[in-house]
Amino acid sequence: MGDARKFVGLDVGGTTMKAAVVDGDGRAAPAISLPTRPERGQDAGLATMAEAIRRAAAAAGVALDDVTAIGVATPGMMDIERGLILDPPNLKPWRNLEVPRHVSAMFGGKPVAFQNDANAAALGEFWVGAGREFASMVLFTLGTGVGGGIVLGGQVLEGAHSHGGEIGHLRIELPDRGRLCGCGRRGCLEAYASATAVVARTRETLENVATPSGLRQLLHADDGRGLTSEAIFDAAAAGDAVAQRVVADTAFYLGLGASALIATVDPEAIVFAGGMVAAGPPFLDAIRANVHRYALDYPAERVTIRYATLGSDAGFIGAAATAKALADAA
Amino acid sequence: MGDARKFVGLDVGGTTMKAAVVDGDGRAAPAISLPTRPERGQDAGLATMAEAIRRAAAAAGVALDDVTAIGVATPGMMDIERGLILDPPNLKPWRNLEVPRHVSAMFGGKPVAFQNDANAAALGEFWVGAGREFASMVLFTLGTGVGGGIVLGGQVLEGAHSHGGEIGHLRIELPDRGRLCGCGRRGCLEAYASATAVVARTRETLENVATPSGLRQLLHADDGRGLTSEAIFDAAAAGDAVAQRVVADTAFYLGLGASALIATVDPEAIVFAGGMVAAGPPFLDAIRANVHRYALDYPAERVTIRYATLGSDAGFIGAAATAKALADAA
Repeated sequence: MGDARKFVGLDVGGTTMKAAVVDGDGRAAPAISLPTRPERGQDAGLATMAEAIRRAAAAAGVALDDVTAIGVATPGMMDIERGLILDPPNLKPWRNLEVPRHVSAMFGGKPVAFQNDANAAALGEFWVGAGREFASMVLFTLGTGVGGGIVLGGQVLEGAHSHGGEIGHLRIELPDRGRLCGCGRRGCLEAYASATAVVARTRETLENVATPSGLRQLLHADDGRGLTSEAIFDAAAAGDAVAQRVVADTAFYLGLGASALIATVDPEAIVFAGGMVAAGPPFLDAIRANVHRYALDYPAERVTIRYATLGSDAGFIGAAATAKALADAA
Repeated sequence: MGDARKFVGLDVGGTTMKAAVVDGDGRAAPAISLPTRPERGQDAGLATMAEAIRRAAAAAGVALDDVTAIGVATPGMMDIERGLILDPPNLKPWRNLEVPRHVSAMFGGKPVAFQNDANAAALGEFWVGAGREFASMVLFTLGTGVGGGIVLGGQVLEGAHSHGGEIGHLRIELPDRGRLCGCGRRGCLEAYASATAVVARTRETLENVATPSGLRQLLHADDGRGLTSEAIFDAAAAGDAVAQRVVADTAFYLGLGASALIATVDPEAIVFAGGMVAAGPPFLDAIRANVHRYALDYPAERVTIRYATLGSDAGFIGAAATAKALADAA
């Protein structure tokens, strides 16, 4: 017996928001996208959210009255329990915005669930993606930063202060020596293993060593805009020595991060998402080798390490999962 | 309305086992202790456990027939779900011992719950100790090693492979530079902040610096047996410069460990237990200052950091809590 209830999942990013109708079994109808344009302010942002939700319903051929609940995921610091975005760096000038209350009001009081975007992506992968056969899962999302989410027995670990699963800020190097992180502190995993950090480390390596590398061309042309983490992973696959060193170090840092999750949460599965997924099996094997080297033997031998499968759909599918959980709890 | 059901909690340590009757509200009757003597083998060990349980019931004036369930906590690696001690370093030569099955058989099939000792201590503090007013709590237990337990919503985080809360093996220094840990790897918190590590770091400091210190006397007399973590914390309180440096570093390492827990679990409270509790408020303040410096601001400002209150009773009280949970689930 399938769960035919309809939910709308909306994933609000700094650049784009993406939404779709998702049924109670996690099957998504075609998704729609709209530019977020946070600089136009909160009211415009809320109107765009409403428009995205309406278009998602239309794309699925579902009347809004037939939608059981809506789930919204947003980036940045929030108070999940109070339903509040606090001060999201990617959604300036939004501040202290009660997203679920406003969205609910725009849809006649329909139940609206709310979650952090990385937590939502973790829930999505847990529900119908890379984590679907496990009882517990940790997601690392590698992008501008390193985000994450911890799912235990079907529930995302929100934490007492909405900071559960902020695993980009696990420290892998002592704070007096570590690389500077966007959080203002030193040594966080994010300062080593985000896509941004991979580019920064490559740039530094190219500036500090004489090793021949095709990446130098990218560094010196067009203000270095071509030096992306994708280009670096591609160069590594093609045998570029500098790129291979950077990628090997990245697998080392991610292996340390995964080891810390094993020593705290000891999940059944650890899943990696983001652009680096394109690096394919060898990168994942390198992460696994580091986990075997640096984590406690017994869980390291048993944990499943794999790539995410939902791509950028994970966020709205997970947002729909929070809507379903809200409806189930009602 | 109190919960008058009677449980027996038994905490098996490498040297001593301790047991008491605990009622359903966490009130403990007088505890009894017996030497564990693991070297006499598993059968003798199981017989001693049975004797401890009988004596605990007698000390409380409770008939064994009136005991609802028994909880047993043991140290070392185990498979909690299968009810198995695997290969505990402190209970040699015990190996692959099905503790709850055997104990249950010795008491006519009475329900027997089973838990790791550090997890049990965390449950005990959560139930009626330092964590009793919180919904989530992490315990750091500082002894020969650094143990721990994570309690979320009343349940201990056992992990998929019984390694949840192995927070002594959070790495605070890169593995190529870190201090050697008992687990065979480098850089684990345990290699810096256990009582054993505090003594080792003090010894190294005394050997490497010329700073005058009363601790030198302890180092050179009686094979250095007087150089205990207690003596070091006492010397720090009395103004000894070497001891103060070691204690400040210990607070730094524990602050890093606590920061990692904040970035993963984000608990309401972090509780420290073990001999270092005797160091009093200044040591706890130093840990707090490091958490404020090195953890994410929002949760760091809100988390409660305090000492444990149950001392060595936490283990058997927590073991009784697992017995209660087993009975409640039946």
